[in-house]
Amino acid sequence: MHPARTLLALSLLATAPAFAGTGLDAGDIAAAEGLRERAMRGSEAWNVVESLTTEVGPRMAGTPADAKAVQWAKARMQAMGFDKVYLEPVSFPVWLRHHERAEVLAPYPQPLVVTALGGSVGTGDAPIEAEVVAFANLDALKAAPEGSLEGKIAVITNRMVRFKDGRGYSPAVGARSNGAVEAARKGAIAILIRSIGTSSDRFAHTGAMRYVADVPRIPAAALSNPDADLIEHMVARGKPVRLRLDIGAEMRASYTSHNVIGEIRGRELPGEVVTIGGHLDSWDLGTGAIDDGAGIGITFAAGALIGQLERAPRRTVRVIAYANEEQGLYGGKAYAEARAAAGEIDDHQLGAESDFGAGRIYALRAGVDPAAWPVIEQIGQVLAPLGITTERGGSPGPDVGPIVAKGAPWAQLAQDGIDYFDYHHTANDTLDKIDPRALDQQVAAYAVLAYLAAESEVDFGSLPVKKEN
Amino acid sequence: MHPARTLLALSLLATAPAFAGTGLDAGDIAAAEGLRERAMRGSEAWNVVESLTTEVGPRMAGTPADAKAVQWAKARMQAMGFDKVYLEPVSFPVWLRHHERAEVLAPYPQPLVVTALGGSVGTGDAPIEAEVVAFANLDALKAAPEGSLEGKIAVITNRMVRFKDGRGYSPAVGARSNGAVEAARKGAIAILIRSIGTSSDRFAHTGAMRYVADVPRIPAAALSNPDADLIEHMVARGKPVRLRLDIGAEMRASYTSHNVIGEIRGRELPGEVVTIGGHLDSWDLGTGAIDDGAGIGITFAAGALIGQLERAPRRTVRVIAYANEEQGLYGGKAYAEARAAAGEIDDHQLGAESDFGAGRIYALRAGVDPAAWPVIEQIGQVLAPLGITTERGGSPGPDVGPIVAKGAPWAQLAQDGIDYFDYHHTANDTLDKIDPRALDQQVAAYAVLAYLAAESEVDFGSLPVKKEN
Repeated sequence: MHPARTLLALSLLATAPAFAGTGLDAGDIAAAEGLRERAMRGSEAWNVVESLTTEVGPRMAGTPADAKAVQWAKARMQAMGFDKVYLEPVSFPVWLRHHERAEVLAPYPQPLVVTALGGSVGTGDAPIEAEVVAFANLDALKAAPEGSLEGKIAVITNRMVRFKDGRGYSPAVGARSNGAVEAARKGAIAILIRSIGTSSDRFAHTGAMRYVADVPRIPAAALSNPDADLIEHMVARGKPVRLRLDIGAEMRASYTSHNVIGEIRGRELPGEVVTIGGHLDSWDLGTGAIDDGAGIGITFAAGALIGQLERAPRRTVRVIAYANEEQGLYGGKAYAEARAAAGEIDDHQLGAESDFGAGRIYALRAGVDPAAWPVIEQIGQVLAPLGITTERGGSPGPDVGPIVAKGAPWAQLAQDGIDYFDYHHTANDTLDKIDPRALDQQVAAYAVLAYLAAESEVDFGSLPVKKEN
Repeated sequence: MHPARTLLALSLLATAPAFAGTGLDAGDIAAAEGLRERAMRGSEAWNVVESLTTEVGPRMAGTPADAKAVQWAKARMQAMGFDKVYLEPVSFPVWLRHHERAEVLAPYPQPLVVTALGGSVGTGDAPIEAEVVAFANLDALKAAPEGSLEGKIAVITNRMVRFKDGRGYSPAVGARSNGAVEAARKGAIAILIRSIGTSSDRFAHTGAMRYVADVPRIPAAALSNPDADLIEHMVARGKPVRLRLDIGAEMRASYTSHNVIGEIRGRELPGEVVTIGGHLDSWDLGTGAIDDGAGIGITFAAGALIGQLERAPRRTVRVIAYANEEQGLYGGKAYAEARAAAGEIDDHQLGAESDFGAGRIYALRAGVDPAAWPVIEQIGQVLAPLGITTERGGSPGPDVGPIVAKGAPWAQLAQDGIDYFDYHHTANDTLDKIDPRALDQQVAAYAVLAYLAAESEVDFGSLPVKKEN
């Protein structure tokens, strides 16, 4: 830009009502910019994830490592200077994986890489040995004649498509969630699905599945992508393909874990809260670095940065490490129900969750009262130098969903998840997959978002109450 | 180029002694170019690898799948039209992997991904539980004081460096080959190494290791790269790190497998042979697609293409599927010894092997009599449109090494192995890692090389006999 024009632009900026409708002033923006720059110079997020993955590792809900993770999170928040750190109970049934093996018996014997789906029953006293019937997708299985899978192992081979925003997941994941029920309705005695994931590395992806009343509960497992290819190549040769499947798994009675909550107390409106967080639990196969150690690291670090300011924001910033997201959003539901029971839903000014890996943030979206949109746009201006655009649309994170369903407003910092489903729910979800610099960018974004939303006095409003998921 | 200059160049070409010293004429070059173009339009190589990986799968030397692979190779060569297909015996001791498990017991309990190294003993009746002593590399372990590893598990964490030509392997692999001996000399009761591989995916890489007389045989296994990181992170915290290691493995008495050999009989000099090939065995973890299903597919397809010519080349083209390369070049050694015993070393005009994965070929190199170099350069001219340069230097493939050590000349078609060590010796060595178009380029190159070397009457000479590896 020509220097004279620069001066003109600057003077226009200075005279415009820059912060109209935001409840924010130049000092607030400067403070937010300071948080952003401090985070970008190097945040604590990677150290937090390193600590969680090294000292706790896999932390499936209801296992001894779950309790260890809760103590770790509490101690870490205290060490990071949160004003108040406390636990809230979250109860759920416990599923345990004991062993899982599969192999082709005929016509081309060789081992297969599989993993049991979360919630699956085991194969019982003896492994299942049966012939395979393969389907291109769940709809094809549903269209199979009644009884046509009697005594068979159903295989579904639909392939998840890779997108930056992960939108290939939802159309693919039905095979995992509902495949066992649909296969059992046709008489199948087990089901194998192609992993709901995008990499062709030989990792099987786990994840939750469900049964329904009055339909037999059959074992359900995922094949790695190369193993699903292998079954397809065998089936294409036209001879019956026989497999052996051996799964040991168990459902146990209820366990009580905890949401771990740390607060930076608001200086003027401590009863009004802005929440950020991630989920503390992981699946058991990997160390849960990207799902969701990253979310824990990012939001702990962002909250701690705000806590280091000389002057706390007006509202309270609450960082939540949710319990058992993976097996049914138990932490998010318990949090929302507790708030509803205490009549505190209206105190929730904005909620956001980081649960889409460790890729950089590229968009800010929000579900707020239209009157509060100028605040979102103002926050977006501070985020813009991070390569973040402000957009309409979007959706809250999974654990924020339950309180949003009760009327609370939300924000979303959308991440680049192009490789998220390469690692998600596999043994390969480990620390090395995380770029520390990308984490810093996310800490910067969460710190700016939480700080400005908490500093503003604008009411983010309540949303029409939706039917709970 | 200006049209007039093109004409000038063509006329110069026509009058120049284009093929001086090569024993080849324009018709031979045209035939080679025809082979090249046919391969590039789509070869059989991928179908061969698909068949081998689907119908046989992992085929570790001495297992039932080894015998199955031999029958598969024989039948496949016959079906592909080789003039003569025969087996030659190859004997070796058999190593079997039964199970392998490792976990951190303290101070941060969590499971580890490991795989036993080929040839390792098991941990015996009970798992080994001991404290770790970590070393940055094999030299650091060698420098440890005598007895300092008494009762300990040694861990070596050196990291293989990625290069297109795989030259990071050799300086890194000593930890795998010799780590157990060096650790046992210091009193260690087991050894774990960082996988000799380049990917950070959570696969442990197996591969051969060795013991020596008078040093205790201790179990040896590789950690995946993320698991080696994990141990480093734990050790860095300063508390003793205790592991449990449980390996079941067994060495059995000798087994006799076979080199499988197919020939396109030479029309004038059938006793003179040009050999190409790959190794038929694989490790047991993956399906052996890139190591070395690719080499089998490429050279079977190249040989078959030559066999489809109306007129066979002057010399015999021999395609060799070597037995048990992985555990000590047994197939290559047996082949060389049988030729030496029969006085046939001098009949070997050129030998080449494809055993570096499925990446494209970028260089032709050779070890031949200087008088035969014009033939190599002429072959290089036909290969140039494939993106292949002709260079000095290089080395023969592993199974060609033993006959080269007895004086036979060799050629090398160097492949881009930038990702070879991502998959090599892991469960992730599967068909999906292969680009069929890249295989076609390699079939084109092997067909041209084998055809022109067999069509030329020039003697590729003998090399100074080297001490056998």
